[in-house]
Amino acid sequence: MYITGLNFTGKTLTGKSNTIFEAENPALGSKIAPSFHEATQEEVGEAIQKANMAFKDYSRKSGPEKATFLEAIADEIMALGKALIQRCKEETGLPEARLNGERGRTVDQLCMFARLVREGCWVDARIEKADPSRDPAPKPDVRSMQRALGPVGIFGASNFPFAFSVAGGDTASALAAGCTVVVKAHPAHPGTCELVASAIIKAIEKCNLPDGTFSMVQGQSTSVGLAIVRHPLIKAIGFTGSFRGGKALFDEANARTEPIPVYAEMGSANPVIILPGALKERKESIAKDLTASVTLGVGQFCTNPGLVFTERSEEEGSFRELLSNTIKEASSGVMLSGGLQQSYKRGLEKLSQTNGVTLLAEGKEEGQGYLGVPHVFQSTSESFFTDETLEEEVFGPSTLTVSVKDKQDLLKVIGKLKGHLTITVHGTDEDLKNYADVIRSLEQKAGRLIINGYPTGVEVCHAMVHGGPFPATTDSRTTSVGTTAITRFARPVCYQNFPGHLLPDELKDGNPLKIWRLMDGNLTKE
Amino acid sequence: MYITGLNFTGKTLTGKSNTIFEAENPALGSKIAPSFHEATQEEVGEAIQKANMAFKDYSRKSGPEKATFLEAIADEIMALGKALIQRCKEETGLPEARLNGERGRTVDQLCMFARLVREGCWVDARIEKADPSRDPAPKPDVRSMQRALGPVGIFGASNFPFAFSVAGGDTASALAAGCTVVVKAHPAHPGTCELVASAIIKAIEKCNLPDGTFSMVQGQSTSVGLAIVRHPLIKAIGFTGSFRGGKALFDEANARTEPIPVYAEMGSANPVIILPGALKERKESIAKDLTASVTLGVGQFCTNPGLVFTERSEEEGSFRELLSNTIKEASSGVMLSGGLQQSYKRGLEKLSQTNGVTLLAEGKEEGQGYLGVPHVFQSTSESFFTDETLEEEVFGPSTLTVSVKDKQDLLKVIGKLKGHLTITVHGTDEDLKNYADVIRSLEQKAGRLIINGYPTGVEVCHAMVHGGPFPATTDSRTTSVGTTAITRFARPVCYQNFPGHLLPDELKDGNPLKIWRLMDGNLTKE
Repeated sequence: MYITGLNFTGKTLTGKSNTIFEAENPALGSKIAPSFHEATQEEVGEAIQKANMAFKDYSRKSGPEKATFLEAIADEIMALGKALIQRCKEETGLPEARLNGERGRTVDQLCMFARLVREGCWVDARIEKADPSRDPAPKPDVRSMQRALGPVGIFGASNFPFAFSVAGGDTASALAAGCTVVVKAHPAHPGTCELVASAIIKAIEKCNLPDGTFSMVQGQSTSVGLAIVRHPLIKAIGFTGSFRGGKALFDEANARTEPIPVYAEMGSANPVIILPGALKERKESIAKDLTASVTLGVGQFCTNPGLVFTERSEEEGSFRELLSNTIKEASSGVMLSGGLQQSYKRGLEKLSQTNGVTLLAEGKEEGQGYLGVPHVFQSTSESFFTDETLEEEVFGPSTLTVSVKDKQDLLKVIGKLKGHLTITVHGTDEDLKNYADVIRSLEQKAGRLIINGYPTGVEVCHAMVHGGPFPATTDSRTTSVGTTAITRFARPVCYQNFPGHLLPDELKDGNPLKIWRLMDGNLTKE
Repeated sequence: MYITGLNFTGKTLTGKSNTIFEAENPALGSKIAPSFHEATQEEVGEAIQKANMAFKDYSRKSGPEKATFLEAIADEIMALGKALIQRCKEETGLPEARLNGERGRTVDQLCMFARLVREGCWVDARIEKADPSRDPAPKPDVRSMQRALGPVGIFGASNFPFAFSVAGGDTASALAAGCTVVVKAHPAHPGTCELVASAIIKAIEKCNLPDGTFSMVQGQSTSVGLAIVRHPLIKAIGFTGSFRGGKALFDEANARTEPIPVYAEMGSANPVIILPGALKERKESIAKDLTASVTLGVGQFCTNPGLVFTERSEEEGSFRELLSNTIKEASSGVMLSGGLQQSYKRGLEKLSQTNGVTLLAEGKEEGQGYLGVPHVFQSTSESFFTDETLEEEVFGPSTLTVSVKDKQDLLKVIGKLKGHLTITVHGTDEDLKNYADVIRSLEQKAGRLIINGYPTGVEVCHAMVHGGPFPATTDSRTTSVGTTAITRFARPVCYQNFPGHLLPDELKDGNPLKIWRLMDGNLTKE
């Protein structure tokens, strides 16, 4: 499949700049053709202007029209066939089976949002009928619903080249809400990005949607992303990646004349708490399954369990031994890029040199390319209290066990925790009863709490919360996975005393769309 | 009724500082006893620590328990009787009838949130049942609902000494969500604030809620408010007031190590567009009713109509004449404070001296105290395009008419508008058909659109949106009036594979609370 190395300013392929870069094969450490043209400020501006023009029309498309479009994107992605998987494998080093699975998830996500907007009640339609006879003042007719925010900028992640990239959850939810989208392609998989973008452009043509509904710009320099977040016509930002990157975008967005929301999912250390009974009963299986979760995808998941708390005991010693053994036997894998490997190595180095932290074990360094070698470290609550960097994410297949003195000490540790995407608790029935107060206290610290499971593997569904308090994200009130993600890209608009013909269908008398609506406070489909 | 001049750090009355201030009677320009002790940094810190301790318990109170508390606050406010109205009248210069009405609205608001949390489905409960047999991976049990954010800081407004002050919409919605609250009292009506705070403290005692569920600190200096917004245990800010004040809090909140959401409602100019047919048909009634809306409450409403657009025509000339006459006949009223009057006068002065703006008429300056005199100015779209200060709110009974050339020019004006709380359109049936595209384009610019009405008078109901794009607010995705305001103070928390006894009642099997829940994607009370 031919890759141009150009930018999509709407459906037009452009490459005005001489600043070029290549993708790299992380398994071979070699460059991959062709060269990609970094978007100029002018090209970014054109894409956003087009997105703004397209918004007037696209934002008023009906649910079924948007659904058809999202399904067309899914179809066009599948139509790219093996060529897409092949290119992505070269750019990311991820195995084919994983990429096939992730493509499936991406396509399913698009179809999930298609179902959501076809069904239509996500708009939270609310109607209060007028009461002209009310005393002392007549009650007006008041109706409201969610409306798309405007053109938005989406920054793809390197670790999910399909599911959190060009046509990933952020783009799908923004398009579903009725926003037009300008994507900043991730420079670690630019060819994959171009192929997926071409699929979206085909879907736009197939569905006869306005040019500018979607654009994608390439770039390695921060200036490309900054041009997006600083542009006055951009009304929100979606981002998945590092704390440094997400926080920089957040600060830029708040420094604008008109500040805009930034939904940055910046990862976390995802603490796992193993309670005494569970440690006693099933330390072998926990050690094995935890190692599998730590090393899954070479540890390159936002939900990778990077902190493990156990109470000081003999059982704890045996558990650490078991965990050390399973980590020692775990294989290395190719990381997504040389940059990520460097950063992982720096993280390991820093931990090794930290007072109160010792290396327990490391896995086998076998294979070719930018390998990520599994590591497990050990520390104590005393060190955890004095050095807050122990809570920071080390992106890769590494975890840090922390020994706490007792339940009181554990409560103190939890009190000190910052925000995380997930917190996991392993316990027997008795543990869970005895530690109910501990589990309650976790609510303040994470978006998702898991009992007797592992944080990796984020179910894409209505009830998922993939988010959490800062610094896991910049907006704890939202999720970037699951149907609720759509609300990030909309705001309520209220229509007072509107004649029927000027109301959106969702708010018309007689409920022509047959959606759930809150009528004078009561949910009904009437 | 005895007023101490002290701060409520929880239920404890304290006054550690020697920095004192008095309330002022704006009708007389005289000080009112007693002196109020500005809260020290230490007192603010104590109040927030208490709020944090209380949160653990209060945030887990059931809907009915919180409802009973909110209703008890309403009862205790009413039990303050005439003394509250009398003190408030002295501090604000607002007439008794208005204050009785506003107290009614405040009490109704508390009861509205009581009904909302007693009914319970505001938490957006979502359940996806496990499917252990799913291929390739089993589906986990995933449930989520809204949970309170934590202790929050609320800044009352001067212009609604009951409805947007100590026990106003922000406090009511935060307490309803399960947050504990620290209020910064408004220094323009500190005695009113203390009385209302004492009612809340009484309700806390009556309902046996933890000390620290509510605190209130007094202060004239910005340092008191800054101590609240900068405190690491505070998780959100509610504010109603000026752009300068709201934006300063927003910037402070984003500069924190852990940024927090700020819901600042900062007012706006609330454009009114009078279409040609309406101008022809009913210019007399529009001039009369518009004047009433401009001068209502001495123009001291966030929704005061400060901009009026009409198309250039003979009718426009006649309308201006009518409007000038009604404004000339309109009475002055006592403004809320000397400071507000000064700022109103500066706003008038600035408009008078602006190129392209001329004074059309002013009202009668009759009465005693800090009078606000009605004013109407005239300008053109040409000036509006070149001077963006014409769009700024002048807080007081003043409005600026802007003559636009034609429909195209009007569309251009709308394109240039910033965010407003409301935009109003007056039109005949034919106007509304001919200008449907104009009306559509307004959605991007305001939280509430009104046809053939006036923006003053904000209906407190399920469908209201009192918000809008920046700079009307710092978060266009929310409202500060109506039941949806509760969502500002909550975030979703997800429970994966939780045993029943650890789940909140809202998410338990069998739906013990009988609330609406999204079960595997379907709304049901089963």
